[in-house]
Amino acid sequence: MSQVHSQMRLIRAGINTYQQPVVYMHRDCHVCRSEGFTALTRVLVRCGDRELVATLNVVVDDHLAPDVAALSEVAWTLLQPDPQATAVFSHPEPPASATALRAKVFGQRLKDADFLALMRDTVDNRLSDIELTAFVTACAGERLDERETIALTKAMLSVGERIDWGGGPVLDKHCVGGLPGNRTTPIVVAIVAAAGHRIPKTSSRAITSPAGTADAMEVMAPVALDLDAMRGVVDREGGCIVWGGNVRLSPADDILIRIERPLDFDSDGQLVSSVLSKKAAAGSTHVLIDIPVGPTAKVRSAAAAVSLEKRLRATARALGLDLSVLRTDGSQPVGYGIGPALEARDVLSVLRNDRQAPRDLRNRAFDLAGALLDAAPGAVAGQGRARAGSLLDSGAALAKFLAICEAQGGFTEPRKAAQSRPVLAGSPGRVSRIDNRRLAKVAKLAGAPGSPAAGVECRVRIGDRVEVGEPLFHIHAQSPGELEYALAYARAHPDIFETGAIE
Amino acid sequence: MSQVHSQMRLIRAGINTYQQPVVYMHRDCHVCRSEGFTALTRVLVRCGDRELVATLNVVVDDHLAPDVAALSEVAWTLLQPDPQATAVFSHPEPPASATALRAKVFGQRLKDADFLALMRDTVDNRLSDIELTAFVTACAGERLDERETIALTKAMLSVGERIDWGGGPVLDKHCVGGLPGNRTTPIVVAIVAAAGHRIPKTSSRAITSPAGTADAMEVMAPVALDLDAMRGVVDREGGCIVWGGNVRLSPADDILIRIERPLDFDSDGQLVSSVLSKKAAAGSTHVLIDIPVGPTAKVRSAAAAVSLEKRLRATARALGLDLSVLRTDGSQPVGYGIGPALEARDVLSVLRNDRQAPRDLRNRAFDLAGALLDAAPGAVAGQGRARAGSLLDSGAALAKFLAICEAQGGFTEPRKAAQSRPVLAGSPGRVSRIDNRRLAKVAKLAGAPGSPAAGVECRVRIGDRVEVGEPLFHIHAQSPGELEYALAYARAHPDIFETGAIE
Repeated sequence: MSQVHSQMRLIRAGINTYQQPVVYMHRDCHVCRSEGFTALTRVLVRCGDRELVATLNVVVDDHLAPDVAALSEVAWTLLQPDPQATAVFSHPEPPASATALRAKVFGQRLKDADFLALMRDTVDNRLSDIELTAFVTACAGERLDERETIALTKAMLSVGERIDWGGGPVLDKHCVGGLPGNRTTPIVVAIVAAAGHRIPKTSSRAITSPAGTADAMEVMAPVALDLDAMRGVVDREGGCIVWGGNVRLSPADDILIRIERPLDFDSDGQLVSSVLSKKAAAGSTHVLIDIPVGPTAKVRSAAAAVSLEKRLRATARALGLDLSVLRTDGSQPVGYGIGPALEARDVLSVLRNDRQAPRDLRNRAFDLAGALLDAAPGAVAGQGRARAGSLLDSGAALAKFLAICEAQGGFTEPRKAAQSRPVLAGSPGRVSRIDNRRLAKVAKLAGAPGSPAAGVECRVRIGDRVEVGEPLFHIHAQSPGELEYALAYARAHPDIFETGAIE
Repeated sequence: MSQVHSQMRLIRAGINTYQQPVVYMHRDCHVCRSEGFTALTRVLVRCGDRELVATLNVVVDDHLAPDVAALSEVAWTLLQPDPQATAVFSHPEPPASATALRAKVFGQRLKDADFLALMRDTVDNRLSDIELTAFVTACAGERLDERETIALTKAMLSVGERIDWGGGPVLDKHCVGGLPGNRTTPIVVAIVAAAGHRIPKTSSRAITSPAGTADAMEVMAPVALDLDAMRGVVDREGGCIVWGGNVRLSPADDILIRIERPLDFDSDGQLVSSVLSKKAAAGSTHVLIDIPVGPTAKVRSAAAAVSLEKRLRATARALGLDLSVLRTDGSQPVGYGIGPALEARDVLSVLRNDRQAPRDLRNRAFDLAGALLDAAPGAVAGQGRARAGSLLDSGAALAKFLAICEAQGGFTEPRKAAQSRPVLAGSPGRVSRIDNRRLAKVAKLAGAPGSPAAGVECRVRIGDRVEVGEPLFHIHAQSPGELEYALAYARAHPDIFETGAIE
């Protein structure tokens, strides 16, 4: 088959199809005919010394000339064609991991080499979103055992970069999530760095929540640092709080998460491999995992927490990571704010030792920072919490935090949103239950995290007594439309706060 | 939120994205901003009294104005907007089946109502390809038990149409597949209709094989009849062989198959629900299932056949279908041809009682037609095969076949391909094994079924003795390029035919 037959000039389609590369060809183009391509065919596109596998969408009218192929945004970025470049199109061989994928779907236990092939094909964009979905689904529930979790984590690690900090302890923390407003990281990092330890923290932006740590931090300082800039901050201040996205730790995890999260298919195996592959890739040696446990948190019961902890420990051991696990209360939000700027204000009020600072956030920060200090080599066990307290009270943690912000590019005071409105209690009583998920949804409808100042401010806690007409929480938004949207949802769900009779 | 905010004019994108509706909006369009849409968001599009859920692709350059939304081909067809129509865009509620989907992914057994919700959302286009993939994967392997298979089959039936033949027996057959060239249906239908029974056969086009029954039949007569035309043929001649696609039996099955087949995720539960939902929807009362068993067929072992048969019988019983099952030899191709026209020529040579007709195809047709005649009400058991033989030998079956072709729109003699080339044996010996899958792949590379005359012609059988330089098979193709493509593959896989030493 002549090369000339399957070659065409490339143009940019200017269409964002998210992470799945798409190539657009006209129905009548000669390559479609000679190669037998139809809509949704997987096409191998070779351009210079780069190649990728894209999904074909067929253009049936005159929006595209029959002698050019157009690439979606991610395909254009991956291939980086020169102007006037041509590409060669053909059917790809099935991905090397096809057999392993099929075996997993059919319930078999996979070996190390299988996971390696799957992760290699994942980061090489050899797997379509449908194949990735099949893999994620086949691993969901209890379908990854402990050995497989370790193998998957190692495979994810090996297809990404690993940061080398040159030896010595590197401390890190991670919260399993599901608890709105639980923004302990900036406080913990400040305390631990003020204690003299290295804690180069990378964090995520929100995926399905109203705020990620990176979003909340970004309200106060730049977070999109690349690896060199990140090293600079850590060399100077011992710690940092940056967005992981620019540092490209565990690229396989980033791809899998984008499939998993909308489907809401968390499982122990996937959670463990995701978290620990990122921690190991970050070069961490001593890791603290915070597991909030509660009926509307991610981990719903003590039994679930035990099983997750067991899997975490086994995998960390296999990776040579020192792991500490803290189970915390997951029954209600932490702090007052849900949303980037509102949570940032909570963080600053704790660091500044404000009388009005949310005590639950402060206490959790002590617990976590204390546990991490206790885990550090050379620590006297049990003294961590007290040390954390004194570093905060003395202002040392605040000074370190501001210094980290400066090193990352400068500190900004978080702003308030333009609009805010209270949602009032409709009946009197004692608050017995708070639905974290619904409260988070209100914050999202109000605009978080896209509008950083938007979200929810809530000071009511389980056990508090409320009267009719008293504010349960306030909605903050940048625009009247978003405010109305969130209010409508809150009014439609009056059971976000359940109240019982006062005895 | 004002309606005006989330309304936009619709245009046709002219892009074929296959079965997944896609809506294109510009990154700066007001609806994206007010609704918080980003790439890959699922968007509810309401236009007049129609609505659908589409996946959003975001246009980042000036190919699309910021004040219009463009629909992919399937979305345009489903929504059928008037010219100048506007649509309202919003976030869809999660599909009613979301909970059931998640439960299945997490390994739970689903109830009747769960499958009904899933199938309803499937045919209503409420599930994205990713959600469909998750469902298909969660059901693969052994993850659908017998009760669930019955529930799924009933659900698929209830969301589609059912043909009513007015009472009395309606005979039908189905081959589980995986055996190239096993084109018994036109012969069996001709024999059974000539015997005076009703046998309104609907068949598929090839999905992943070199030819489906509908493709082979279409070489000889029109097959794309709608329901009224199909009834006309059956009223006149008692039988027909038409393409199921125009009759829209089991639309849920059509959607699921498009996800399943590229992934190659067959399982007993899925196969049984697919086949029997179609048979029941076709209005059949007496069904014969042909299960070829062999190492390179679909069903690989006797044990697998037993398990499949058990599942088929239980589900048929629950649906009130009379089921016969025949296990046949699946170790090598049947007939000489693989590809639409080549298989059609085999069919005609058997019907015409040609001396050169492939005996294995003839014998299988006797077996199957005989079993179906035995299953018909009022039959004297065991006499079916002999009756089938005499209907064929007398020419009654041929006459009936040609009459059916006329009734469907006219008979055409199958044509030969423009090019053909033999593939020769490289070593002498006795043929011990034939790889059906690889041989089918050669036929596809040669152009089947898109080029109906293309494919493979093979007269060698297991046990035959071959000398060096003797033809193992011939490749037929319409173009020199396709011929070369297929030849290259055949040369790269000299083990399609395994030969052993002559004793």
